[in-house]
Amino acid sequence: MRAVVLTAHGDLDTLVYRTDWPKPAPGPGEALIRIRACGLNNTDVNTRTGWYAKGVTGATTGGPLDGSDIGNPTWGDAPISLPRIQGADACGFVEAVGEGADPALIGRRVLIDPWFRDWADPHTLEKCTYFGSERDGGFADYTVADAHNVHPIDCDLTDAELATFACSSMTAENMLNRAAVTAGDTVLITGASGGVGSALIQLARRRGAVTVALCSEAKAAAVAAIGADAVLPREPADLKAALRGAIGRDTVTVVADVVGGPYFPTLIEALARGGRYTCSGAIAGPMVQLDLRTFYLNNLAFFGATILPPGVFADLVGYIARGEIKPLLAATYPLERLKEAQTAFIAKRHVGNIVVTME
Amino acid sequence: MRAVVLTAHGDLDTLVYRTDWPKPAPGPGEALIRIRACGLNNTDVNTRTGWYAKGVTGATTGGPLDGSDIGNPTWGDAPISLPRIQGADACGFVEAVGEGADPALIGRRVLIDPWFRDWADPHTLEKCTYFGSERDGGFADYTVADAHNVHPIDCDLTDAELATFACSSMTAENMLNRAAVTAGDTVLITGASGGVGSALIQLARRRGAVTVALCSEAKAAAVAAIGADAVLPREPADLKAALRGAIGRDTVTVVADVVGGPYFPTLIEALARGGRYTCSGAIAGPMVQLDLRTFYLNNLAFFGATILPPGVFADLVGYIARGEIKPLLAATYPLERLKEAQTAFIAKRHVGNIVVTME
Repeated sequence: MRAVVLTAHGDLDTLVYRTDWPKPAPGPGEALIRIRACGLNNTDVNTRTGWYAKGVTGATTGGPLDGSDIGNPTWGDAPISLPRIQGADACGFVEAVGEGADPALIGRRVLIDPWFRDWADPHTLEKCTYFGSERDGGFADYTVADAHNVHPIDCDLTDAELATFACSSMTAENMLNRAAVTAGDTVLITGASGGVGSALIQLARRRGAVTVALCSEAKAAAVAAIGADAVLPREPADLKAALRGAIGRDTVTVVADVVGGPYFPTLIEALARGGRYTCSGAIAGPMVQLDLRTFYLNNLAFFGATILPPGVFADLVGYIARGEIKPLLAATYPLERLKEAQTAFIAKRHVGNIVVTME
Repeated sequence: MRAVVLTAHGDLDTLVYRTDWPKPAPGPGEALIRIRACGLNNTDVNTRTGWYAKGVTGATTGGPLDGSDIGNPTWGDAPISLPRIQGADACGFVEAVGEGADPALIGRRVLIDPWFRDWADPHTLEKCTYFGSERDGGFADYTVADAHNVHPIDCDLTDAELATFACSSMTAENMLNRAAVTAGDTVLITGASGGVGSALIQLARRRGAVTVALCSEAKAAAVAAIGADAVLPREPADLKAALRGAIGRDTVTVVADVVGGPYFPTLIEALARGGRYTCSGAIAGPMVQLDLRTFYLNNLAFFGATILPPGVFADLVGYIARGEIKPLLAATYPLERLKEAQTAFIAKRHVGNIVVTME
């Protein structure tokens, strides 16, 4: 089958397009899925470059690692083995099932929940692995997945549109769950033009919260069109003044952040007493300065959001099927042009998600 | 009456002992309390030196401020006015009540909940003020307090012993509540010989959690006697190895911190996936480095704990009255020697709390 295979940690040349990769076979309880489209995510880039390793302290640039000690270059405890097929956001059709998996899945169009679990103990975080990271993912003609992770979906969206959702929307919904965002909240969203950021706008609005988006001025109109109640520049020099102008007060109750970096302290100072910070990424750099006085005297709470409880993905599939959130498909590339797609993804001139297709 | 009055933000000389200070009178809904003993806390020192102001970045040393801009030098939004009687941990007897307050309080020995609220809206954090900070506290012969904040207590402890509890134990209980500590947890406690630290040991044990205390070697035996399951040096160079030796694994589920400073990143790295960090102080310095990757990839949650919900203080009075937590009275000084008491408090050679008495 066709597949793009990560052969080493390094620059884009470590991604190799193959047409002779072995087609997997479904084991007991698994489904074989013919993939039609698969979305790109920062986690692909981070795993490729080794950014998750502690020896690396810079922003996600997609460049090589300058010889940094990348130690364990994945999000979690289990080291990843190479070669590896990446890609977390797969949409496809079930072609066969292994022993014990429901044959009614065959022929259904499905999304794949990227968090694989020990279903006898689904809440133990140490037992979770990620699709396209510790196990082969969606940048290929076929994949196999635990049938628990295979979610049929019936709707009018295209395969490529459906491949924009899984990783980013699931991450965004989990961030909002962790911070218990409700209709009374005002949520400040960083990186609002990206996959997670644009999903945060839609999913926070779905809960009735007010959203304030931070993004580059070139994307402000597109981000407003997603539904943000207010759009501000990416890093306003005086954030409190900018908030006052936009929403009439200089604090928010929630910051939902995927950016981190040098602007982090400004975000934290914009939280109202009792406010919550929720985070699933740090594309501008992971090492941040925290003033513990602001943190404890203002009764703040911070929530890291990576692994999520079972059930969130099924909620998300319902939102998509009912049209409660919309796809933001920025561009599609054929699988063999994944490197070009990832170059565009890293350049961040798009709004929403970039997808490769297996036409 | 006698009182020690803070006359300016600065060094110990800003604390002035007076014998001619006006005795307060209880207003509607208030009680007049003849104070018998009042405990010392870091908040007294922090308010005096202006440490809460953003212009200050060092450790709590109790020294003068070197001309730093102290802006708003209190824990919260409302500036404090001077002169001010400090002291948050008062034990005394109700001598009179104002209109509308229950006369049955008269003659009772009481502890004072230091968080004063708008009882028509007790959960709005912006409306909370602190005893001895935005309002006069317990370093005096008399004080007045909202009768809601006056909690009778019947037990065999001395007045000075009772004055060790309020601020530190309430803070510690709130830290544990915020992090939802239960019997399954292992709690790493910094500053374990201090007021909050020693209360954390007792209150976490009361919940059935395992406690690992960090403190100077000179105090290790005393801290073990409080009931810590394991005692480690203040800043082990290899914390994970030290934990493995003490409890058989190299992570904990909760860090309860009042120290902060340069050791903060080491504490965070010792949290298990899904672990919680709870904080009510930063005596080694408020500015800390955070690696957002550790934070979000490990699904951590951080809780700042200053203002607490109504009800926690009443819980605490019950624990004390039933003997579920014990006082740790390190030393007593007469009120007129408060400066000497605070000098000893800042030197941190004691275990537990230091109290002034109004004999």
